[in-house]
Amino acid sequence: MLKNRIPGEIPEKEELEMRLDRARTRLYELQMRIKEHKLPVLVLFEGWGASGKGSTIGRIIKNIDPRFFKVATMSAPSEEELRRPFLYRYMKQIPEAGKFTFLDGGWMEETTDEVLKEILSEAEYAKRIDSIKRFERQLTDNGYLVLKFFMQIEKKDQTARMERLLSDKDTAWRVSESDQWQNEHYKKCRKVFDRYLQDTNMSTSPWYIIDASDKKWAELQATELLVEGIEIAMQNSAHSVPILQNVFPLVKMPKLQEVELEGKVIEEEEYRKELKELQKKLGELHNRLYRRRVPVIITYEGWDAAGKGGNIKRITGALDPRGFEVHPIASPEPHEKARHYLWRFWTRLPKDGHIAIFDRTWYGRVMVERLEGFCSENDWKRAYNEINEFEKELSDWGAVIIKFWVHIDKGTQLARFTDRQNNPEKQWKITDEDWRNREKWDAYETAVDEMLQKTSTVYAPWHILESVDKKYARIKALRIVIEEIEKTLDRVK
Amino acid sequence: MLKNRIPGEIPEKEELEMRLDRARTRLYELQMRIKEHKLPVLVLFEGWGASGKGSTIGRIIKNIDPRFFKVATMSAPSEEELRRPFLYRYMKQIPEAGKFTFLDGGWMEETTDEVLKEILSEAEYAKRIDSIKRFERQLTDNGYLVLKFFMQIEKKDQTARMERLLSDKDTAWRVSESDQWQNEHYKKCRKVFDRYLQDTNMSTSPWYIIDASDKKWAELQATELLVEGIEIAMQNSAHSVPILQNVFPLVKMPKLQEVELEGKVIEEEEYRKELKELQKKLGELHNRLYRRRVPVIITYEGWDAAGKGGNIKRITGALDPRGFEVHPIASPEPHEKARHYLWRFWTRLPKDGHIAIFDRTWYGRVMVERLEGFCSENDWKRAYNEINEFEKELSDWGAVIIKFWVHIDKGTQLARFTDRQNNPEKQWKITDEDWRNREKWDAYETAVDEMLQKTSTVYAPWHILESVDKKYARIKALRIVIEEIEKTLDRVK
Repeated sequence: MLKNRIPGEIPEKEELEMRLDRARTRLYELQMRIKEHKLPVLVLFEGWGASGKGSTIGRIIKNIDPRFFKVATMSAPSEEELRRPFLYRYMKQIPEAGKFTFLDGGWMEETTDEVLKEILSEAEYAKRIDSIKRFERQLTDNGYLVLKFFMQIEKKDQTARMERLLSDKDTAWRVSESDQWQNEHYKKCRKVFDRYLQDTNMSTSPWYIIDASDKKWAELQATELLVEGIEIAMQNSAHSVPILQNVFPLVKMPKLQEVELEGKVIEEEEYRKELKELQKKLGELHNRLYRRRVPVIITYEGWDAAGKGGNIKRITGALDPRGFEVHPIASPEPHEKARHYLWRFWTRLPKDGHIAIFDRTWYGRVMVERLEGFCSENDWKRAYNEINEFEKELSDWGAVIIKFWVHIDKGTQLARFTDRQNNPEKQWKITDEDWRNREKWDAYETAVDEMLQKTSTVYAPWHILESVDKKYARIKALRIVIEEIEKTLDRVK
Repeated sequence: MLKNRIPGEIPEKEELEMRLDRARTRLYELQMRIKEHKLPVLVLFEGWGASGKGSTIGRIIKNIDPRFFKVATMSAPSEEELRRPFLYRYMKQIPEAGKFTFLDGGWMEETTDEVLKEILSEAEYAKRIDSIKRFERQLTDNGYLVLKFFMQIEKKDQTARMERLLSDKDTAWRVSESDQWQNEHYKKCRKVFDRYLQDTNMSTSPWYIIDASDKKWAELQATELLVEGIEIAMQNSAHSVPILQNVFPLVKMPKLQEVELEGKVIEEEEYRKELKELQKKLGELHNRLYRRRVPVIITYEGWDAAGKGGNIKRITGALDPRGFEVHPIASPEPHEKARHYLWRFWTRLPKDGHIAIFDRTWYGRVMVERLEGFCSENDWKRAYNEINEFEKELSDWGAVIIKFWVHIDKGTQLARFTDRQNNPEKQWKITDEDWRNREKWDAYETAVDEMLQKTSTVYAPWHILESVDKKYARIKALRIVIEEIEKTLDRVK
């Protein structure tokens, strides 16, 4: 166990009661303060089977209004969840600003289980640890308080508790086969747990070992740590988080100014022929993707009126409707805004074998949110790396990631805006906001250039679609999608 | 097959192409009109295996912007879904106002499958048909366009198609075991399908039989019917829906005026003793519920400051946190408002064996939405029956439903409001809106009286909690919860 975090001795009964009383009252008071401060609090209970994770959570939440917390029991992932990246089901559970989520078991348990069952190789374990550390850091960097408790009991205590639970038919179901296995292989488990705790003990989300030999004493430790954690986090509210250096291999991208738009055209007849052939090809690949369970994520960003919609349609036109979904991304709804900005994208990830197309994306963070001041400078500067990490996660999961910037020049946009304005059937496509955004063209261009430079990674590069001739852009998009999918299918053959 | 709805002869090639062209163009135009009209369109494709449901959907959606539709393939329910009522996973899929959902297989397939596998008894089938008819009617009554297509092919065509699909490894997965079984038992299946089509052929959501012997011809029929359906629905937009007579057995409820509040008190010492005993008892019952997989739904409505929060806490304090969830209900978010008003409650239903507590509920429809004019008179008048039907569905599923009205008199409310106002620690609990609602006390009382009379069904009766003494109300609530759970557990023993 982490030597520096072992709890003290269990206090005398009287002192214990007194401290417990004080900690409970303080927690009760703090729930409203975290609401005011919009502090999201994620409390992870990990530890031995029968160490009392559930019952400790039960005791703690008695001091919190039921409207302010959720408890999630993370049993084995469902089939739906297994078809998504490892972190998917944990990301799904993160609390809204001002609320608590208590997790009974989590990403530690899932990982150590897989190590013990020898499902994870050493290399996979190392990768997993990286994912987890990034996940926790992204949460704390984005203002989450993440508290990690490991409930520690000795083998003999575990044996005694399991025997007691098993003796009553109403509680026997609480002892799982895996708990029993743990008990039989206590030493081996302890080694695996110890290593995991060491590997994921970060300064922003350290582990706290809870001596769980006594119920009240366990409650006291957890409540005091929770109270202390909240108080510290609230003092830190105006935090400025270090911007990490990029560690991912980048592909060099041109500046938008340097992108040659002229001459990127296609003849009508050739367009029709190519479109038909490419769509047929893509349709066939979709079948193969499905069978091999390869997930595909296609993202669209670009200037207003650049032709994103029509481009997407030429992709989806080739696909089996049972195997894809288009996600139009508008400004976040309240429950989305109240969480990590990537939450609404994590929760929209496709199942493996499926294709998700995002019509506008998480890159809103470094474009509209940056320019309209919807997030702080520290937030959007940090986002390049956070997004690279997010896409790394998707890529490691096995996803093909294809990112398009649909590009036109300012003159073309004006012509299309005017056309829309003058054409009653197209008027719905143009709003005052489009005109306002147009005024900020230069600022957007700077932001887009920076985004292209900083987030075009080898595993998720940007592709520029020259779209003054929309047909040219559609054919190019189809070609790129086909090529990228083929590359991956060849690799996983 | 339904005789009156059999499609005509397949037209000559030239006419077919011409009509197809016209129908596609019209559908393309209509997508913006449905957006303006906020018309939600649910298109259900049922029919024989290998009849081309998926590919017909694929052809139709080529005429619709990918941002305006979703396609859902309803394969066999997942384990998560099986732990919820039958309609849960279909309700989850209903479109937002102004959008399409296309379902590839749905509640017909699931039902006829269960009939063919002899899982459903005659009585269960009859009940299922009732559920489905109510579900579809509730959708159409609430402004949904529900189009139901049955894709018909003859046995020899089915055989030929399946053979073709099976001959290519990239398409072979599309032929399921169940498709093969169907083909072998074509006649038997046809009988079951026919009966289902007859049983669920309603004037507001009739069946359309599509002759699926030819792909383009199938597309033409479906597209023309879709276009026609949308055009008719848009003309009906200012619809007034008949208010159905109540068919559910009701429990007689007192008027709020008649509820005796005086003397409903409990001594501190007795309270403590009772609370402890009742909570212990409830905790034990929770274990039994879990093992027997009985779902419990507890709902709270009541006057502001009546003590709902504290009451809920005394219930949850007794429960294992892994087995319950509290849902605080505020005004709906945009994506919730854009759907049937019960959608956000359907999607929050507990798994069997779990307890869901709703802090405010679907009864908002006949209280705040009625009084503030957030819905039409026709809407809230219809809601009593819609809610009774919803709760009937839950009750038939096996849920224990416990509905509380937490009651105080006007004077008590004023005292509590004033106390909150004057107490800095409680000020967050009182808002201007509370004072405004208080001014409408009489109108609310009328609405509540009507609600209690019309929705206190035998299977989901209201319970009034006299809460001038909050402790009295808590003990009463615990007693009722225990009693109702025990009744059900005795029954399912």
